[in-house]
Amino acid sequence: MILELAEIHIHPGQQNEFDLAIVQGLKEVVSHSKGFCGYKVNKGIESPERYVLMIFWETLENHTVDFRESEAFSAWRTIVGPFFAAPPVVEHFTLLDKSI
Amino acid sequence: MILELAEIHIHPGQQNEFDLAIVQGLKEVVSHSKGFCGYKVNKGIESPERYVLMIFWETLENHTVDFRESEAFSAWRTIVGPFFAAPPVVEHFTLLDKSI
Repeated sequence: MILELAEIHIHPGQQNEFDLAIVQGLKEVVSHSKGFCGYKVNKGIESPERYVLMIFWETLENHTVDFRESEAFSAWRTIVGPFFAAPPVVEHFTLLDKSI
Repeated sequence: MILELAEIHIHPGQQNEFDLAIVQGLKEVVSHSKGFCGYKVNKGIESPERYVLMIFWETLENHTVDFRESEAFSAWRTIVGPFFAAPPVVEHFTLLDKSI
């Protein structure tokens, strides 16, 4: 399993609307994609406009090819894109170790 | 529960040694701290010197006060600090939503 980690910074003061939009987009669009395994949405304490979105995929290509080249990607960006203050920074990770 | 998210960049070519050191430090030092709830260590695919360390704490102060002001913090940094190419960037998050 692969972790997609997306650094998101939104426009100030739009947290409440974005909280609804990102969960809607994940549930209605992303979660139906091939290889989708789950998500977590984290909100910054020190930086209230900062969100860290974690999406778990079976393979790297499930995100970079199957999702990004699908119509679902456009639908997702239509929902969450207007909130972005800058393009999200996205990279992928493998799990080295965990305790839980 | 609070997520501590630490962005770590290590010196090139030291991945194997750092993989052992960070797990050792987490198991032998951090996991015995007050309010510790768990950890995950993630290794970058696109950026092989990048690690994202997630530590879950009961409260923010369990990390920022109880851990950082303890001798355990020095012990932890003695184990992992020599690998750091730059000071880690650390912030804290609350969980907005998750699917798993």
